[in-house]
Amino acid sequence: MKFSDLDNHHMQRALALARKAKGTTFPNPAVGAVVVDAGGKVVGEGATSVCGGPHAEKLAIKKAGAAARGATMFVTLEPCVHFGRTPSCVDEIIEAGVKKVITAVKDPNPLVNGKGLRKLKAHGIDVQTGLLARSAVLVNEDYCWSIVNKRPWVSIKLAMTLDGRIADCDDKSKWITSEASRREVQEIRRYHSAIAVGRHTLLSDDPKLTARCGRKTYYPARIVFSSTGNIPADKYFLTHADEARTIVVIGNSKKCVIERIDNVEYWYLGKKDVAESINTFLEMAYAEGLTSVLIEGGQKLASNFLEHDFVNKAYLFYGNKIFGNGKNGLMFSKGLPIENSVYLDRVEHRSFGDDFFVSGYVNRI
Amino acid sequence: MKFSDLDNHHMQRALALARKAKGTTFPNPAVGAVVVDAGGKVVGEGATSVCGGPHAEKLAIKKAGAAARGATMFVTLEPCVHFGRTPSCVDEIIEAGVKKVITAVKDPNPLVNGKGLRKLKAHGIDVQTGLLARSAVLVNEDYCWSIVNKRPWVSIKLAMTLDGRIADCDDKSKWITSEASRREVQEIRRYHSAIAVGRHTLLSDDPKLTARCGRKTYYPARIVFSSTGNIPADKYFLTHADEARTIVVIGNSKKCVIERIDNVEYWYLGKKDVAESINTFLEMAYAEGLTSVLIEGGQKLASNFLEHDFVNKAYLFYGNKIFGNGKNGLMFSKGLPIENSVYLDRVEHRSFGDDFFVSGYVNRI
Repeated sequence: MKFSDLDNHHMQRALALARKAKGTTFPNPAVGAVVVDAGGKVVGEGATSVCGGPHAEKLAIKKAGAAARGATMFVTLEPCVHFGRTPSCVDEIIEAGVKKVITAVKDPNPLVNGKGLRKLKAHGIDVQTGLLARSAVLVNEDYCWSIVNKRPWVSIKLAMTLDGRIADCDDKSKWITSEASRREVQEIRRYHSAIAVGRHTLLSDDPKLTARCGRKTYYPARIVFSSTGNIPADKYFLTHADEARTIVVIGNSKKCVIERIDNVEYWYLGKKDVAESINTFLEMAYAEGLTSVLIEGGQKLASNFLEHDFVNKAYLFYGNKIFGNGKNGLMFSKGLPIENSVYLDRVEHRSFGDDFFVSGYVNRI
Repeated sequence: MKFSDLDNHHMQRALALARKAKGTTFPNPAVGAVVVDAGGKVVGEGATSVCGGPHAEKLAIKKAGAAARGATMFVTLEPCVHFGRTPSCVDEIIEAGVKKVITAVKDPNPLVNGKGLRKLKAHGIDVQTGLLARSAVLVNEDYCWSIVNKRPWVSIKLAMTLDGRIADCDDKSKWITSEASRREVQEIRRYHSAIAVGRHTLLSDDPKLTARCGRKTYYPARIVFSSTGNIPADKYFLTHADEARTIVVIGNSKKCVIERIDNVEYWYLGKKDVAESINTFLEMAYAEGLTSVLIEGGQKLASNFLEHDFVNKAYLFYGNKIFGNGKNGLMFSKGLPIENSVYLDRVEHRSFGDDFFVSGYVNRI
């Protein structure tokens, strides 16, 4: 299978559309589609709309109108095929007379997983897959993982000093990292369907837990982990519970149930050890439509998730500071021996001003 | 003052010669010199030889022979001028009939400090300064600092995990960083006249403390800090004391004196607090001809130097590992508040394989 530079160009555009939509489509994946006529002219574009609205392919076809006939569609994810009330994207593509479909990746959803592509082929449409596949998975790694594993994709973000501290000896932690790093954090948040913090972080920072990206603000679900469920009523988390889905997770509780009071959900995990509690939380989260959770700390929450192997990806920011002492970013109940330590797969290094940034996929030696 | 691309090219070559000589010239600076005739042809090159041997300028002039007459000399540091038994470099340059001298920086040694350049000018030689000055200082930052401040340049090197640990819970620390990082450490060592470790590091790692750069091995002075002075006789440090200058620094001692037994020097610092002890050590080190000391850990030694503001430069390596617990790279007796924390000036980021590297000049907010 060979793709031309022009194919590449159109798929890059479709990916840009998908990336732009990310943060508004949960629990659906963010998809981009571009329709190009036989003369090489872009005649339609579309991206997944807010959950419940039309898919990228439908929007692109609608824009193309009659020009879709005989055209090529570039789409970042395999078009959906199902037997619902409204026609599936595959049906719309066939109906519109599209001649060729180039997709980046198959939809790993067991309900699709190649069925869409097969149906297109069965209707004589030329189908090619694999163009910029890695970039396409990156946009929807939460969706691709969760649909198969039936639990949310879990990321941790830590903002540390050069000596691995997240707070000084007076427990002050604001402005460890640069403005450029903090902007990047907002982008990372936008890629997650929920942001979680520990009770200590909520109390000391009173965070908004929104994703402020340029002029637009996104509202992922907000989660606080608390052993008591007792959150002071004046915190932003509760005063603005109407702004985003708001969840209090209560570990080590007698009951194991979800209760809703006003705008707040209380998720009781039952009496379990740390690993079992996290497992129950992740099962609940998937059942509740959360495809990804970004753990933003503090020390205990991030350490618990990482120590018990529940983290898919780590985003580590290092501010240009040294405290020499204070609160460590990570403090496992039992440190890992060097021969069995965590490492980051496909590690990436970046600089944000004087800060440096390391990200990668969590793995064990 | 304007320098041409060709000037730049020749000075780059002189700098390369200086860098190559670094590690063999202590306590002298490592200098490179290139002589170019009126036709633009390189007719002589030289670099500082092992301490006591001829300087870069003399070697370059000797190589140029008669061709030095009317030529231009590029030299990374102001040529020396003094009234010793042998003629100074300035005298040799005048004698050889060199027409123009381009230097990178003035020699900050109060005995030179512009006198060399003035004497050259007084003899009708065209003198220009400042070409690639920053790179030239970088080769000899130890010399430039120590000659003015009368104490050695102090660097620390730490090899940490991504969570700031230098050893796991079983105190194992070998192979935190990659081979590429460890090669870079050898280069950093070569730039220092002495390498220092704490007693714990010496006992657990039994390090050679040499700088193994390609096929060549360099032998900076070796220093161990020990409260007792008691080093097991089977350690490389003592069994190979004839290989390099070998120094045991004993803090909190009754006497304040240097004693020599066989090939080993014992530096007693006297009864003092931590800051006073380090200060005494640095005074002794300067008096003993050490222009720079690289502190390689462990935790206590690096922390003591950094906490008490004795460190000029930090070299921080982050291996692609997370232990979650274990020994922190730094543990001050009193952590710094965020508003008065250490930061790195002119910070530099590099990647060595999957490892991250941060270096910079230690400063306080």
